[in-house]
Amino acid sequence: MTELASLKPQHFLWQVEDRIARVSLNRPDRKNPLTFDSYAELRDTFRALVYATDVDIVVFASNGGNFCSGGDVHDIIGPLVDMDMKGLLAFTRMTGDLVKAMIGCGKPIIAAVDGVCVGAGAIVAMASDLRLATPEAKTAFLFTRVGLAGCDMGACAMLPRIIGQGRAAELLYTGRTMSAAEGERWGFFNALHSAETLEAEAMALARRLASGPVFAHGITKTQLNQEWNMGLEQAIEAEAQAQAICMQTQDFARAYHAFVKKEKPVFEGN
Amino acid sequence: MTELASLKPQHFLWQVEDRIARVSLNRPDRKNPLTFDSYAELRDTFRALVYATDVDIVVFASNGGNFCSGGDVHDIIGPLVDMDMKGLLAFTRMTGDLVKAMIGCGKPIIAAVDGVCVGAGAIVAMASDLRLATPEAKTAFLFTRVGLAGCDMGACAMLPRIIGQGRAAELLYTGRTMSAAEGERWGFFNALHSAETLEAEAMALARRLASGPVFAHGITKTQLNQEWNMGLEQAIEAEAQAQAICMQTQDFARAYHAFVKKEKPVFEGN
Amino acid sequence: MTELASLKPQHFLWQVEDRIARVSLNRPDRKNPLTFDSYAELRDTFRALVYATDVDIVVFASNGGNFCSGGDVHDIIGPLVDMDMKGLLAFTRMTGDLVKAMIGCGKPIIAAVDGVCVGAGAIVAMASDLRLATPEAKTAFLFTRVGLAGCDMGACAMLPRIIGQGRAAELLYTGRTMSAAEGERWGFFNALHSAETLEAEAMALARRLASGPVFAHGITKTQLNQEWNMGLEQAIEAEAQAQAICMQTQDFARAYHAFVKKEKPVFEGN
Repeated sequence: MTELASLKPQHFLWQVEDRIARVSLNRPDRKNPLTFDSYAELRDTFRALVYATDVDIVVFASNGGNFCSGGDVHDIIGPLVDMDMKGLLAFTRMTGDLVKAMIGCGKPIIAAVDGVCVGAGAIVAMASDLRLATPEAKTAFLFTRVGLAGCDMGACAMLPRIIGQGRAAELLYTGRTMSAAEGERWGFFNALHSAETLEAEAMALARRLASGPVFAHGITKTQLNQEWNMGLEQAIEAEAQAQAICMQTQDFARAYHAFVKKEKPVFEGN
Repeated sequence: MTELASLKPQHFLWQVEDRIARVSLNRPDRKNPLTFDSYAELRDTFRALVYATDVDIVVFASNGGNFCSGGDVHDIIGPLVDMDMKGLLAFTRMTGDLVKAMIGCGKPIIAAVDGVCVGAGAIVAMASDLRLATPEAKTAFLFTRVGLAGCDMGACAMLPRIIGQGRAAELLYTGRTMSAAEGERWGFFNALHSAETLEAEAMALARRLASGPVFAHGITKTQLNQEWNMGLEQAIEAEAQAQAICMQTQDFARAYHAFVKKEKPVFEGN
Repeated sequence: MTELASLKPQHFLWQVEDRIARVSLNRPDRKNPLTFDSYAELRDTFRALVYATDVDIVVFASNGGNFCSGGDVHDIIGPLVDMDMKGLLAFTRMTGDLVKAMIGCGKPIIAAVDGVCVGAGAIVAMASDLRLATPEAKTAFLFTRVGLAGCDMGACAMLPRIIGQGRAAELLYTGRTMSAAEGERWGFFNALHSAETLEAEAMALARRLASGPVFAHGITKTQLNQEWNMGLEQAIEAEAQAQAICMQTQDFARAYHAFVKKEKPVFEGN
């Protein structure tokens, strides 16, 4: 049994309430850059979430009007410029491991994006399951602007599936900013909310998911990732197995019995 | 040689005219739920379509203002709650087999969606090749609302490819209704038509396809599914082979000769 | 070392300036059909681009108000109708090889689409990385209209990833024209520009990419195609490796040093 409510991370903000974990970066004065330390601690935290018994949903929130400004130029890019291949690959694997940990953590992640959402910050949003934003959200996969390729932390695989191959190619080749309106129109953002209401809307969505069959949500997440490159026949068989598992949960019986009594089901996540 | 015009299904409506089969569910008073029996009979019928010599196109129509309300709560969900794993997996495999039969039947399927289109009904629409709807269509992948996961009958594989990964995730995690306008905007529905004209529009589209090179349509359907998880190089080679097959059909020669004579080609499906 | 500025193709127009190659077909009186010869020469040119030392970006432009009318009915379809399977497969493989050469050439390709863009012409646009168009662009994957299947040169694999599975299915089954407005709305075209400005906008975009880290752009292109059917975990590892390579380029260091000096980086593509 792993309880994460008592976690005291050093490099980001963390709060657990009503089985919802709220994460946000903690350098609002610098628009919340990522550092070697925060990358590693986030990775470890998302890895721990797999076994967490007190968290069902994660909200990755903004702080001080911005989501995340990506890898810090001084703290990260500077050292990388002087690093050898062994060190570079260790770094790119660590950042990739954050995405792997996010998609493998077993709990739906809702990104609540205000303001700057660039570089690795855009990747964190992309690797979340659901994305809400304010009209002021400015999202840029700007790797090309620092001399790098668009293939960072899974972007060439994941972004095309979210917004389509052509739009993803444009963002990755040019590094240009995707406006919030474009993001909503293209399916990157599920909805836009004002800066005043974003946090409340994200928490409301989190509570809605948390009041659902959270064991089944975990299976949904697993299958969305697991079936990524399966053939159709294999995916259908995989879902037959996965859904049969869910049909043996109490939540399935709870829903049925509530329906028969014309009541609203109360799910317990088992 | 298998002729399906004479088929007399017990659990759904079936009619073949002008090489177009029209299917619809037959419990309009209950918004057309699926039952164990209708699942199995639909599966068998779509399997038989592979060999049908008198059907080229299928229209899956609505009935009484609704498409399909999904698995019946009393007839299906009740028994499932008490079933053992062997029975559950037999059931989820049977439902998956309906989707496999639809995507493997070799004939384009047009769903004509009015009103309620939820649960397994939403899956039937999703597994069709083309989807028309009325502005009143309400589509929900509501498995989560009955305590289950979104991974039902291939939804985690297919829905993201139709509407994008982020929008699919929202529908599958929340079980919320996708409005007809959203469905059109997101690419789930190819077009919206009034309830008065939906059926006529679906039949017109079916006739348009039926007047085309239907052997080649079958190859199009095969390749759309076959290339699902191929690499790009492999997909291109697969299409070189598949199209070379089509170039040896008479329909290809018919089109050419008609063009030379400045006439409209009359395709015969061979 | 291969320099392509001096290339004198016989079957299309070719110009290299500022490290940008401009290709366009050269039969504007017939809306720029493809022929056996132009297919083969385009394929060879895109293959040579892999090793070209003087080209970083390709613009595939329109000519005389049209992009490309596809395989010529008299020059191509007529002979195919009388060809044996060996000849047919040699032809479909050659056309597929053009797409393979385009996606494998290592340089971003921008299609600038005005007017007619049909059949193999639509495929050339689809196989480009970015697509601009005029409001007058008429794009049709019209293979079905000549008695063939929609699976031509990779269309059943690539088009669904660009515009979604349902919209792609409609275009491929019906062969209908996609309007420019639909193309923009669905993500096929990245932007629309007037016929007067299309060429200038395409060249401006090309110059923007050419002034970026073009070695890294090549890696972006490689990964977009390479990760097509990888699992998520494998794609993330592949990107860790690919980005580590880019971090050892001088362009990465140039960007960093420019940033520190608050200057705009000047990339050199190595």
